[in-house]
Amino acid sequence: MSDIESYMQQLGAQAREASHEIARATTAQKNAALKSIARLIDESRDQLMAANKLDLENGVEKGLDAPLMDRLELTEGRIDSMIEGLNQVATLDDPVGEISDLKFRPSGIQVGRMRVPLGVIGIIYESRPNVTCEAASLCLKSGNATILRGGSEAIHSNQAIASCIASGLEEAGLSKHVVQVLDRTDRDAVGLLITMPEFVDVIIPRGGKGLIERISNDAKVPVIKHLDGNCHLYIDDKADIEKSISVAVNAKTQRYGTCCTLESLLVAETIAAEVLPALFDQYRELGVEIRACEKIRKIYDGLETASESDWEEEYLAPIISAKIVSDVDEAIKHINKYSSQHTESIMTEDYNRAQKFLREVDSSSVMINTSTRFADGFEYGLGAEIGISTDKLHARGPVGLEGLTSQKYVVLGDGHIRQ
Amino acid sequence: MSDIESYMQQLGAQAREASHEIARATTAQKNAALKSIARLIDESRDQLMAANKLDLENGVEKGLDAPLMDRLELTEGRIDSMIEGLNQVATLDDPVGEISDLKFRPSGIQVGRMRVPLGVIGIIYESRPNVTCEAASLCLKSGNATILRGGSEAIHSNQAIASCIASGLEEAGLSKHVVQVLDRTDRDAVGLLITMPEFVDVIIPRGGKGLIERISNDAKVPVIKHLDGNCHLYIDDKADIEKSISVAVNAKTQRYGTCCTLESLLVAETIAAEVLPALFDQYRELGVEIRACEKIRKIYDGLETASESDWEEEYLAPIISAKIVSDVDEAIKHINKYSSQHTESIMTEDYNRAQKFLREVDSSSVMINTSTRFADGFEYGLGAEIGISTDKLHARGPVGLEGLTSQKYVVLGDGHIRQ
Repeated sequence: MSDIESYMQQLGAQAREASHEIARATTAQKNAALKSIARLIDESRDQLMAANKLDLENGVEKGLDAPLMDRLELTEGRIDSMIEGLNQVATLDDPVGEISDLKFRPSGIQVGRMRVPLGVIGIIYESRPNVTCEAASLCLKSGNATILRGGSEAIHSNQAIASCIASGLEEAGLSKHVVQVLDRTDRDAVGLLITMPEFVDVIIPRGGKGLIERISNDAKVPVIKHLDGNCHLYIDDKADIEKSISVAVNAKTQRYGTCCTLESLLVAETIAAEVLPALFDQYRELGVEIRACEKIRKIYDGLETASESDWEEEYLAPIISAKIVSDVDEAIKHINKYSSQHTESIMTEDYNRAQKFLREVDSSSVMINTSTRFADGFEYGLGAEIGISTDKLHARGPVGLEGLTSQKYVVLGDGHIRQ
Repeated sequence: MSDIESYMQQLGAQAREASHEIARATTAQKNAALKSIARLIDESRDQLMAANKLDLENGVEKGLDAPLMDRLELTEGRIDSMIEGLNQVATLDDPVGEISDLKFRPSGIQVGRMRVPLGVIGIIYESRPNVTCEAASLCLKSGNATILRGGSEAIHSNQAIASCIASGLEEAGLSKHVVQVLDRTDRDAVGLLITMPEFVDVIIPRGGKGLIERISNDAKVPVIKHLDGNCHLYIDDKADIEKSISVAVNAKTQRYGTCCTLESLLVAETIAAEVLPALFDQYRELGVEIRACEKIRKIYDGLETASESDWEEEYLAPIISAKIVSDVDEAIKHINKYSSQHTESIMTEDYNRAQKFLREVDSSSVMINTSTRFADGFEYGLGAEIGISTDKLHARGPVGLEGLTSQKYVVLGDGHIRQ
C-alpha cells in the first residue's frame, strides 16, 4: 500500500468511526459545535488572512487566472459570511430523528419512517476556501461525518479553517474526526476517496463540468452531482406580455453567472411579433447578445444566427439563444431534448397548458410565470444549500439538510409475530 | 459496433422515447393496460405452459439443480398469482403527479414537490419468470419504461409473458416499448445495459449476492440493490420473557428462506439463564441448530461453538447464531459491526433503551418488540414490493411504487421576478 493509500484509509476509518458518534449527537451538541466554530473563526481572522496570503502569493507565482484568484481570496467580508453561515445553520431544524407517517397496520404493528444521516460524505471542491466551512456545517448539522478535499491552491487557507473546525468540535465534546480536511495535495487522493465504499457513503463534487464528469465516471460510491444549468423560458401565446418581458429580462440579466440563469428563450409563433421587439430592445440595452432562429431574425433585425450547438449551451454570460416554436408541445419537446434538466419556466395564463408544462417537463425545477432565478435553496426555504442536484435519484433540485439524510423504517410492536 | 451493441442501443433508445409517453399517461390508461395484460395472460395459459415446458426440458438437459428448476416452473397457481398481482397493482394509488408541501414563500412564489417517474429502469433477474410480470407492472404503474433481462434458462417463458405485456400495452393505446423484455441471451447484454446512462436511469438487480456485487461494481448508472439480510434480535434484560420467546421463535422459524428471517440472537447477560433454556428447547424441537458463544454454552448443554464468521452469516436455513452481550450498548455495537443493515429488533419494556436502539441501529428497518419477519412491503402497507433496498441513498428498506419515483420542485408564480 502506498503512502497516500494508507493515509486515505486512515482518514476513511476515522470518518466511519466518527459517523456513529455524530449520528447520535444531540441537536444541542451539534449547535454548540457550530457556534464554537463560528467564534473560533472570528478569533482567528489574523491566522486565516495570513494563511490565505500564502495561497494568494503561490497563486500569483503559478499564474492563476483572475477569476480563480478572486475565488481563492478570503476577505473580511467573506469571513463575516462564513461566520454568519455557521450561526444560521445552528438555527435550522435538526432533520435527524424526525419520524413521519407512523401508522397502525392491520397486523397491529405501527410502521413509520425515521430520518437518519447518510453516514460519511466526501466533498470534492475547487478553489473557494469558504466552501470548507459551508460544507462542513451542513454535514455536521445533518449528523454526517465528512472528508473534505479542497483545491490544492487553497491548502493553507483550508488548513487554517480546518483547525478552527477541529477545535470547535472538541469544545462541544465531539470527535475532531467528524470533519476531516485533507492536509495533503496528492492528485491520487480524489481517486482514492471516490473508491472507498467501505468508508464513504456518498460523494458530492462541487466544481466545473470536467471535474464532475470525471468523478461520476470513476466513482464506486453514489455521487450527488450538479451538472450545468441550460435553463429555458417558454412564452406561450396565452401569456401576459408585460409579465413575460419582465420575467425574461430578470431571468437572463439579474445575474449572468448562476446555474439558474436563463440561457434559452422559446416563444410561441403567434405571439412572437408582439413580445420579442420590446423584450429584445431591453436585452440589447443591457448588452445581451441574442442568437436566434431564422424566423426570429425576420421579425427583429441584426441578430446572430443560432447554430445547433447554441440550443445546448450554458453561456453563463450576457448571451441568450432564442427560438420560435409552434406551441407548448413543441416547447416541451425542445426542452426535454436540449435542457440540462435544471430549471425551466412557462409564461401562460392558460390553466391546462400550465398543468401540462408542469407535468411533462422533466427537470429538477419546473415553474409557472416565475423567473428561473428563484431556483435556489434559500428561495425555496431550505435554509441552506450544499448544491443543486440535476440527478434523478435521491435528491433532485436544491439540496439542503434533508438531502443529506435518508429514511429508515421504524416498526413498533408489543410482541407481535407474523402469522 | 457489434451486433449485440446495436441491439441494446436500439432497445435503449426505444425505452427512452417510451418513457416520455408513459410518464404523461393517465392513471386510467395505466390501469387499463394492467388489466388487459392480466386478461391476456389468463387467455394465454396454454401458450405460457408450452413455452415453460420448453424451458424446463432445456433445464433438465443442462442439468439445472432442483431449487433452480422449481423457480423456473410456471404452474397454474403461479399464473393465477401473476394475474392477481397485475389486478392488485391496478388498484393501488398512482404516485405520479402527487404534489406535496406546496407553500408560499416570503417572495410570493409557491414552492412544492411533484412526484415523477425515474425514467427508464433496467431490471436484471434470474430464473423466475413471474418476476417479468411483477417488475413490469410496478414500473408501468409508476410511470417508468422498463428493460427486463431475465435468466437465459427462462427465455421462452419470458417471451410468452412479454408478448402478453406488449399486447396489453397496445390495447390501452400505449407503446409496446414501455416494457421491453430482451429476446436474446447474449452474456454481454447485462454489461451493456448497466453502462448506458443516456438510456437507463437506474438498475435494479434481483438475484444472488454474486450477481448484485458484480453489477454494482461495473454499473455506470445508479443501482438500487438488495444484498443479504443478516437480521438480529436483541433480548434486553428489561424484556418480557414470554413475548421474547414467542418473537424469537417466530422470527427464526416462521420461514427460513426469507431475507428478514432472524439469523443472529443477542441476549443481555443477566437475563440469559432465564430466557434461553425455554427458547432453545423450542428451537431444538423445531430442528434449529444453535451456534453459540462460550458463555451460552455454559448455560445450555450440547451447542455448537460459534466462530467469528457465524456473526456475519445469512444462513437462510434452520441455523441461528447466539451471543451474550452485557447491555444494549454492546448489542448496538455488535449489530452495527456485523449486520447487513437489513432488519434488527429489540425486545425491551424499557422506554429509553427502546428509543436508543431505534435511533442508533443503522439498518433499513429497526423494530421494537416485533418479529423481524414483518419487514416486507405488504406488511408495511406499500401494496407491492419490487425489492428491499439495503442502500442508504434514495430508497431504503422495502421498495414499492414510491421508491420507483423521484420528486421535482414545482414553483408557481404570477410574473414573479427575483430582486
